[in-house]
Parts: sequence; structure tokens; C-alpha cells
Amino acid sequence: MRESEIIAFIRERIAAAGDDAAVIPFRNTNLVFTTDMLHRTTDFPPEASPYAIGWRGVAVSLSDLAAMGARPLGVLLALGDPGLADRLVQGVLEGALACCATVGTSLIGGDIDRHSELTLVSSAIGEAERPVMRKGAHVGDAVCVTGDLGRTQAALQLYEKGRTIQADELFAFPPRVAWGTLLAPHVTSMIDISDGLARSLHLLARESGVGFAVEEELLPISPEAARDIPLRDRREAILFGGEDYELLFTVPKGGLADLPPTVRFSVIGEVTADKVLLNGHELPDRGYEH
Amino acid sequence: MRESEIIAFIRERIAAAGDDAAVIPFRNTNLVFTTDMLHRTTDFPPEASPYAIGWRGVAVSLSDLAAMGARPLGVLLALGDPGLADRLVQGVLEGALACCATVGTSLIGGDIDRHSELTLVSSAIGEAERPVMRKGAHVGDAVCVTGDLGRTQAALQLYEKGRTIQADELFAFPPRVAWGTLLAPHVTSMIDISDGLARSLHLLARESGVGFAVEEELLPISPEAARDIPLRDRREAILFGGEDYELLFTVPKGGLADLPPTVRFSVIGEVTADKVLLNGHELPDRGYEH
Repeated sequence: MRESEIIAFIRERIAAAGDDAAVIPFRNTNLVFTTDMLHRTTDFPPEASPYAIGWRGVAVSLSDLAAMGARPLGVLLALGDPGLADRLVQGVLEGALACCATVGTSLIGGDIDRHSELTLVSSAIGEAERPVMRKGAHVGDAVCVTGDLGRTQAALQLYEKGRTIQADELFAFPPRVAWGTLLAPHVTSMIDISDGLARSLHLLARESGVGFAVEEELLPISPEAARDIPLRDRREAILFGGEDYELLFTVPKGGLADLPPTVRFSVIGEVTADKVLLNGHELPDRGYEH
Repeated sequence: MRESEIIAFIRERIAAAGDDAAVIPFRNTNLVFTTDMLHRTTDFPPEASPYAIGWRGVAVSLSDLAAMGARPLGVLLALGDPGLADRLVQGVLEGALACCATVGTSLIGGDIDRHSELTLVSSAIGEAERPVMRKGAHVGDAVCVTGDLGRTQAALQLYEKGRTIQADELFAFPPRVAWGTLLAPHVTSMIDISDGLARSLHLLARESGVGFAVEEELLPISPEAARDIPLRDRREAILFGGEDYELLFTVPKGGLADLPPTVRFSVIGEVTADKVLLNGHELPDRGYEH
């Protein structure tokens, strides 16, 4: 089955599917619950350090919580690997613990197993009184993205060049949890851009029943992407490369001035009635398939 | 690293590690949170149906909640597989949905990915006002086990004989969630026996700082194990075979009469000051390593 067919099949059976995380109403608030599987072939360059792998292994789930505007309550990590060498296990755990600590939560358990391939599955619980969904964008809202784009693709370039330390630093991205909770009361829809900017725009447009008009010159290119990704590859990397885990969100234009000043973001376009356009041309629905 | 060394390393860093699930105090109650990784090589016979695989894939986590005396709030399932064939994906999901339904909870999301090996990682959240831990057994308590022993080992025998339908039925064990919540107010310690009866007795003894004296003739052998496991293999299967997911618990002897009559269980011995004995001889700390 193709990923899109599988998702259609799942959505018929699981009402809550189709957002960054599942929502469970509980005691006058909501639990927000997510799981993510990463593995060697698709997600971890051979040069990445165990620490960076462990960091990223939990950061993907924390990023899902961020995209819902949720405050993390705890993280679990399942680790499978053929050898379970000391250096790998310890590095992965130290990276995972450090990443949890940066967003004020804890790694509280997990599972460990010999496996044919290095595999990390993190699960995270958060709490959100009003979780931010993918549906909710209104025509006329501003479209915004946090931070800047291309860090992960720059990291991959640096790994290939053997500049592992700098690559690891970029690869261990900071989950935008604090920004997500600060943005939550203001925004109309939100998603993380783990599938790439283009695919994420399409997902948000579909769930909200709207379109987007985005301007390429408004996209915030990270300094590392500007420095380490060759110019001929940069546009592809920024639009379709994926795995940057910034937050893409929509907000009424009148509300832009009220966004908390500590959140770094860029307005990149506006919400329209239909179609996802970049500089007036349709942006392909293509991205990073995990 | 050996599994025991890894666990020691993890316990130094993760305070909550060392029970069936992690506990998060939340709004005057507790969230109980667990994750389990299963995969083809170790956990799924080649003959097992996708439905039975999906059932078992979530049942392991629901069993962890049961062992804490927790009421399930929701389950996520991450599925990785090389081919993601329609029959596999649909069967796994139908099995997972059905298992959740039998214990009154729902599969509410997950992740799906191509992977070198069939891999299922389920995560579950539950709630327990007073979670039952592995520590808490007192000298003189009765030692009990729910249901009966040897179903999984009987299933493996049936798979080998090509009796797949009967094997699937045994393999898709019912998580003891209802029993776990009924037992919780009465018991002093509890664990599921996914690592095998012998290993689980040792884990419970270590966490509680006690010993056990168990009598072999008191062990409840399942009719399927009595019928399908050859006599020469039966003792090994019952004591060390593992993956039965019944609940092993301790209860003050005076409280035995108060246990809810709907819970099917057997008294198999009593709590002592130290050592794990079977018929007066030390029971090896050996079991099923996942």
C-alpha cells in the first residue's frame, strides 16, 4: 500500500487520525498523545552520533506535541538495534534525556530489544486545554513559520563532507515546545513541517478546506542552509527536503501584533480559498515520506 | 550490552524505570504510560495471521496497564514492515482495533513506515488513582496468578503443526485489564508474566525485597498446554517459556476471601523472607528475553 492509501484506510477506522497527535479529553482538559518510528535506513545518516540519534528520536514526538500547543508530561523511548553496543545505548539515552530536559520534561521509561536495524520509537504525552488542530485556518489569515528552514538538509550535507560535529549540532534540532504553547491561544491551525514545507502546506490546506498563497522571498532560509547547501539544490531542500520540525501556523492578520515577542517566526503568505500557490504557481504536493 | 546491564544503566538515569509502566501524577490521579516493541524475529511466528499479530501488538501494552491496575485511556500503534501489503496492514489494524475494543478502549493513532523487518510498537495510557507497583509484597502474603499458564507455548506448538486457526486464537490472548482494576484495591504487588513465570517471580521478589515459596502442583496449567505441549517440555514451557501475560500478584492471606469472585486466579505459594523456591529448591532466574 502507498502511504496515502494506508492513511485513508486508517482514517476510516480511527476517528482521531489525521493530526500531529491524538487528543483524549480527560478531567476538564485534554491529553495529547503521539508516537513516531525512526530507523537507520530512512532517518539516521551513518555518521550521526548516538547522542544526536537519541536526541532526534524523542524530539520528533515532542515536536508533535508542540504542533498541538501541548505541554509535555513525559516521554517513553523504545530502542531496537542489532548489537546494542555500550556506546550506542548510552549515547542514545544521554541524547534523549538531554532533549527532554531542554523542554522541561523527562524520559520516564521505555523498552529495549535486539532488532535487525537501529530503530527508535518515541511516544509522548502532553496536556492542552485547547489543542490546536490542523483544521481551523480561515481565508485571509496570515501563514507563518517558526525559526528557519533547511537545517536538516544542511546537516546531511555536512555529514557527507565529514564535518560530523557541526552536522550533529544541526541534526539535534530543538523541539519548538515553548513556542507551540505560546502560540496556541492565538493561532487558527498548526502543524509541524516534518514532511517538508510543501507537503505540510498541502496537509494543512486539506484539513482546513482552504488554499495558501506563499511568497518564496519570504521564506526564512537558515544561515547553515545558505552556507552549506549548494545554490542549485537549495530551493528543493527548503521546499521539499523536510524534517525541519519547525511549526507552520495560521493566525488572523489582526492578531499578528499580539503574538508573543519571544517566538521567532516569519509571515510567508496568506490563506486563500483554494490551491497551494508559490509565487502564483501551484506548489506540488510532494515531500519527505518517512 | 546484556539486557540486565542495560536495565541497570537505565535505572541510574530514569527514576521511574523498573515497573510494568511509568507513573505520572496528574490532577489528583495518576497517568500510567507504557511502550512495547515486538518484531518478527523474536515475537511473531511466521504462520501467525496479521490479525493475531495486530491483536498481540497492542495487547502487550494493555497487559502492562493491567499489571498496574490501570484503566486504559487510549492506545497508539507504530507499524513498520518491508512491504506494507494490504492484507498485512488491514489485518494488523483490525486485530489491534478488536483487542482495544475488548478492554473498552480505542486505538486512536499511530505511525506507519517501511522497515527492514515487521515491527510493532504499541504505547498505551491508562489512569490509576493508586497504581499497583512491583514493590509492596510482604512476608506471609499469598502469591497468586490469574488465568492459566502455557497458552502461548501451546500456540507455538500448534503453529508448528500447521493448526494455524487454533494457534491464532491462543496467541491473541485477552489482556487482563478488567481483572487488574478489580484486583488493584486488594493486592500488595503485581506484575505481568510476559518474561515467564520464573523471571517474573524473581523481578517481583527483587523489587519487594522478599522471597517466594511456590508449589509446582498449585500451578494452573491451561487445557491447551496440557493437550498440545508434550509432557517432557511442559515444565520448561510453564516455568520459563513466557509471554503468557497473566497477572502475578501478592495479597495478604486474610484478604483472599475479599477478592472479587469474577477474577479467576490460583494461589501458588507464599511470600517468604528471601530466595525464590519451587518445591523447596531454588528456581533459576531465567526466562524469556525479548
